[in-house]
Parts: sequence; structure tokens; C-alpha cells
Amino acid sequence: VCLARLHDVRSIESIQRACAARSDVIALAGGLPDPVLFPRSAMQRAMEVVMAEPKLGALQYGWPEGDPSLRAWIGARLGVTQDDVIVTAGAQQAIALAIDALAARGGVVGVAPTTYPAALELFRSRGLDVTDDADPNVFYLVPEIGNPEGLPLDAAIAERARTTNVPVIADDAYAELRFDPRERTRVSAGFSPVWRIGTFAKTLCPGLRVGWIAPPPEYRALVLRLKHDADLQSNGLGQAVLAELLRTWDYDAHLARARAVYARRASALMDAVRRHVPSWTFREPEGGFSIFVDTNAPGNDVAFLALASAHGVSFDPGRMFRTREHATIELRLCHCNVAEPQIEEGVKRLSKAWVSVSTSASAPRDRRSA
Amino acid sequence: VCLARLHDVRSIESIQRACAARSDVIALAGGLPDPVLFPRSAMQRAMEVVMAEPKLGALQYGWPEGDPSLRAWIGARLGVTQDDVIVTAGAQQAIALAIDALAARGGVVGVAPTTYPAALELFRSRGLDVTDDADPNVFYLVPEIGNPEGLPLDAAIAERARTTNVPVIADDAYAELRFDPRERTRVSAGFSPVWRIGTFAKTLCPGLRVGWIAPPPEYRALVLRLKHDADLQSNGLGQAVLAELLRTWDYDAHLARARAVYARRASALMDAVRRHVPSWTFREPEGGFSIFVDTNAPGNDVAFLALASAHGVSFDPGRMFRTREHATIELRLCHCNVAEPQIEEGVKRLSKAWVSVSTSASAPRDRRSA
Repeated sequence: VCLARLHDVRSIESIQRACAARSDVIALAGGLPDPVLFPRSAMQRAMEVVMAEPKLGALQYGWPEGDPSLRAWIGARLGVTQDDVIVTAGAQQAIALAIDALAARGGVVGVAPTTYPAALELFRSRGLDVTDDADPNVFYLVPEIGNPEGLPLDAAIAERARTTNVPVIADDAYAELRFDPRERTRVSAGFSPVWRIGTFAKTLCPGLRVGWIAPPPEYRALVLRLKHDADLQSNGLGQAVLAELLRTWDYDAHLARARAVYARRASALMDAVRRHVPSWTFREPEGGFSIFVDTNAPGNDVAFLALASAHGVSFDPGRMFRTREHATIELRLCHCNVAEPQIEEGVKRLSKAWVSVSTSASAPRDRRSA
Repeated sequence: VCLARLHDVRSIESIQRACAARSDVIALAGGLPDPVLFPRSAMQRAMEVVMAEPKLGALQYGWPEGDPSLRAWIGARLGVTQDDVIVTAGAQQAIALAIDALAARGGVVGVAPTTYPAALELFRSRGLDVTDDADPNVFYLVPEIGNPEGLPLDAAIAERARTTNVPVIADDAYAELRFDPRERTRVSAGFSPVWRIGTFAKTLCPGLRVGWIAPPPEYRALVLRLKHDADLQSNGLGQAVLAELLRTWDYDAHLARARAVYARRASALMDAVRRHVPSWTFREPEGGFSIFVDTNAPGNDVAFLALASAHGVSFDPGRMFRTREHATIELRLCHCNVAEPQIEEGVKRLSKAWVSVSTSASAPRDRRSA
């Protein structure tokens, strides 16, 4: 199983890399935020301030927990203290630190039936079992706005996590990108013990690699040690630029702009799918970067990706997000980094690829069962 | 043993943190490069270029192996191809990736009798045995200019590594800071299979957290997977700024300046120790940031650090660098981030602290044997 998984990951990656190298492929894959939303001039001003600081602390070694003013800002946002917060290299490192602290000797990680692929790969790399039904030793959940559906965590799973004593790693990478922020559900409110994880990758820009973790206080020393083992500290330049940016710039106004852009694109994507491939179904997202489509047809999602890429469009195969095999072909379609006319064109190409599958005798073959 | 080690690390760190918070303590500890050598204006220009790039690729997600032009530069420097190089979050992450690829299921790591402390901590965290004499499953060596001595790797150890088939992790963090670069020894030339590791942390600035690893080709896919598990990719801003800097700026002229500064400070430090504490001995370094002093007196180096800090000076206790206990008190004294008059004053304070030990009935007591 593990080797098959690794094989999947590699063949998907090689198709995605080939697509990324072609300028004629519309990428409904990847989940990259739109660089139009990167606050270029405000960041440039922040960099100038950081580089004018006499001691150039941003370029020097720092302590593993990270920049104090950035941690204070994050703590205030989360409703915890600065001391609770450790800056990480994005949410991914935060998940790795949490799982290494909680399940270094193996165990079972409880997740939703669909979830963030790089977390699933990490758990499998570490030799952990991943389950969406058995009793786990630790939960990894994306409570507010999940990936790939863009919806709050399923209430039954949230309730199960709330009523056990098992630690919950709560990854809120997309929480600030709920299209209507008034509807914030606070799904994770009752989780205990809870490890809060977040990142600036989706709301600001991924390239700084700045995220955070707030572990339960009794784990703080261990997490700091694991962080030091991993890379000594997160990059100081990115932290200092962010701390300065957040001090002087209106982050909430930026979030409002970003939510509006992504909400509009999500509508355009849903509309295009409904018109061009009415047999496909999905749930309407409440936030995030994507919709998760069920084609309602059996077959192999990776083979369909190869076919779609020949038609000039890419997506993320559903299996990446799943703990177990699914009977029908599913696709994550990302709207986040595609202008609206290109969304329309991308879905058209997808529908042509799909028609070519349906009209040929064979659906995309499942190479796994071949 | 492991718990005692963890206790050591924590008590040393708490003293160092207290010292760092006091402006009256001269830090002969830490091994921080001098920020005066950070190329402030050249970096600022590089940042402007990076931020003016239309797609702002530096702020977007990238592939786990890192920026292609930066990898090409590093590859050319190492005499390998761009494809051999993976960008990491400093040398520390490179060491972690190598050891997780080579010794995920345990094993024995062969090191020199004194070596880089954060590597020792990492190996112990991972449950690995560390040895400077038994036959290891993997070597971790710092071939060109070691830490803490600032000297090439002991010839007998290098020969042992050269004549086994055991993989060698060769960390050349300080190799470019040999005071006389014409004397470069190429100690690691015969290592095979070799994992080459390096960083810009010592020669340019640590805060970017950009280093590299060139694993044997057959390990490349595994290392990329571990890198993706760890943090998806290294920070794009730091990579892009470095790539631009190295394209437009004279790195070798910068290295020549840095070598001259550190060579002068090493002389000042050696001179001060010889004058103020003639009973202490050390070997003359050929590069790097420090000298490694043997006080030739038994006692507890951490207790002496606590005493020294009360006298307004700090250093790094010798045990941090050792695989096993040492009979006498040793100190790493760093000259790298201290102006010459402060070096003189720092050593004076150290000598006063030492006199107070020698004239009191008791040497710093060994709490470990208490």
C-alpha cells in the first residue's frame, strides 16, 4: 500500500511538473494564491524598514521560537499569549512538529475522509496509520474551512474529536478565507488538548514560509527542541518583514479583498462546471481555494489527469485527498490563481476531455487494479 | 544519559538567554557572524529586483528542490550539477534530511571527538548512538574547517571515513572561511558515498536560512520527499534574494573581507588568552569563528559559565561539542561577533572569573557527579 501510494504521488507530480512547464495549460491544480493579491508595495516598504534597522536582526540568528513581535501579533489573533506561539516554516512544518511530538513511536492519526494531501503524505512517511473511522491516538483536523471542499469540518467528526481526550491538531490554514467571515463557526472551540496551527501562506503569500503552532503548554519545550533539531529557527527576514507589515498595514482590509476575489472566482467555477459538465456534482464551498468534484463515474483519476493535460488543463486527482480508495473519479478544481475567463476556458477543456472519455468505449482505466 | 544531556542543554540555554538579554555581557558565545559583514545595500538592491519581478515568484509556492538559478550557482561552486543540489533551511535541515534518509531506523553515527552541537542534539533526539571510535553506520564530519577548533578534520578520522563504504555526511559550513584559502585541504575528496552540505549562514547571513544538500543521486527522490514532508520548500524570498545577489555581486571579494576580519579577531583572541590566562591551552585555528580552550583544570564547565556570566562574559561550555565527558573544563570562545577591544575586555573578565575559582577552595563543582 505504501509503495503504491508513493508511486501515485510520483506519477501525479511528474504530470503536474510537465503541466507547470507548459504555458498553454490552464492550472485548475495546485492551490496557489493569486500573486495579484500579494501586497507588493507594502512588503517592499516593510523590507526597507527591516533592512535599515541598525543591528540587522532579521539577518542574524534568533531563538527557535521566533520573532517576539510577530508572535505577539499571532497570539492576539488566536486569543493566546505570545509565549504560547512558536513560529514555524509554514503550516506544514507545524504539522510535522506536532506529529513528531505526539506520535514519534507510531500510532493512528484520525482525519476527515478528505483532507490536506501533504499532511497525509507526512503521516504515511512517518509510518503512521491514517483513519477516518477507527479510534485514533491523535486527530489531525482542518476545522474552519477544509481542503479540498472549502467547507467547515463535518459536525459528527468534530463532535467525536470534542468528546475524546485524544489531542487534536487543528490546522486553520484557510480559516481567514471564509467568504462570509460573519459565519465563522469556531468548530475547534471545544477541542482539548488542542494544537493550533496556522499560516500566512494562503492569506498573504507562501514564499515567506511563515506559519505557527501553539501547542499545549506542557509540550512547548519539546516542540522547541524539535524545531531546533529541524532547522534551528524559521527565516528571520520573512518574520521581520511580516512583523513590520502587520504593524503598519491593514491586514483585515486585505483579507476582505482576498475573500471577495476568491468568492467571485468560486462562483465562476461552479457556474462553469454546472453549464459544461452537468453530470458532475460538488458541494458549494464556504471559503478557500477550490471545489471538490465527483464525476459520479468510475475510473482512474490520474489517468484522467494525463488526458486532461493533453487537452490543456490540469487539476488535482481526488485520491491525493483521500485516506482510502474511492469508487468514482474525483477532482479538486482550484479557482484561486485563475482569472475568470480562464476558469471558463479551463472547464470547457475539462469537459472536452471528459466527453472524449465517455464517448470512447473505456473510462480512464484504473491502473491500480490492472 | 539522554535525560542528563537534555538537562545540560536546557540549563546552558537558560544561562545563555539570560546573558543575551543583558547589554553588559560580552558574548564570546554563540558563533554569530558579525552583522557588519552583512551586505546590507547589495541585499537591498537584490530585494528591489526580486520584488519588481512581474509574477513575484519569490513569494509564491515553488518546488521542494528550490530556486533553479540558486541551485545552478551552488552546483557550480561544488563541482556538481544543478540537479544534484537541493536547497534547505540552512545546514541544520540538510543534516536532518540526511540522517533521516540514512538512519531512520536507528544506528550509530560516527563523529569527531568534538563537533557541531546542534548535530549532536539532533542525533540524540532521533535516538541514535553517537561515537568517536566504534564502527558507525554513517559518518557526520565537518571536513575543511571544524567547529569548535577551526581546524581541518583529524587526518586519522578522515582516513577511516575514506576507507569504509559507510556514507559520509560532509558539512562544510565553514569551509569558505579558511583564513588562507590557498591552504584548502579538500579533506573530503575521497569520501564515497558522500552527502555534501553547506550554508550561506556563516559567510553571508544566517537569517535567510538558506543552505543546501547534494545527496548521492540514488537518494535524491527520498530526500525531496522528506523535504516536502518537512516544510514543502525553503523560503522563496531568501532564495531569490540570494540568487540575485550572487548574480550581480562579488561574493569572492566579500569572502576575502570576511576572512581578513575573522583572522584578525582570532589573533586578538589568542593573544588575549595567552596574556591573561597563560595556564589555558588551545590549538591555533586555521579558519572559522572560534578557538577551543582547555583550562587544564577539572571541574564543571556549566558552573563556570554561570560564574563567568556574573563577571559579565559568556562562552560556550565544552561539553556541548563533545560526544563524551571530558576530564577538564573546556570552553569555546568565539571572536566572530566581538570588536577587538571587547575581545580583550571579555578575556580579562574571564580571567577574573577564573582567578575567583582558583583562589576559592573549590573549583566549579561537577553537579553531574553530585
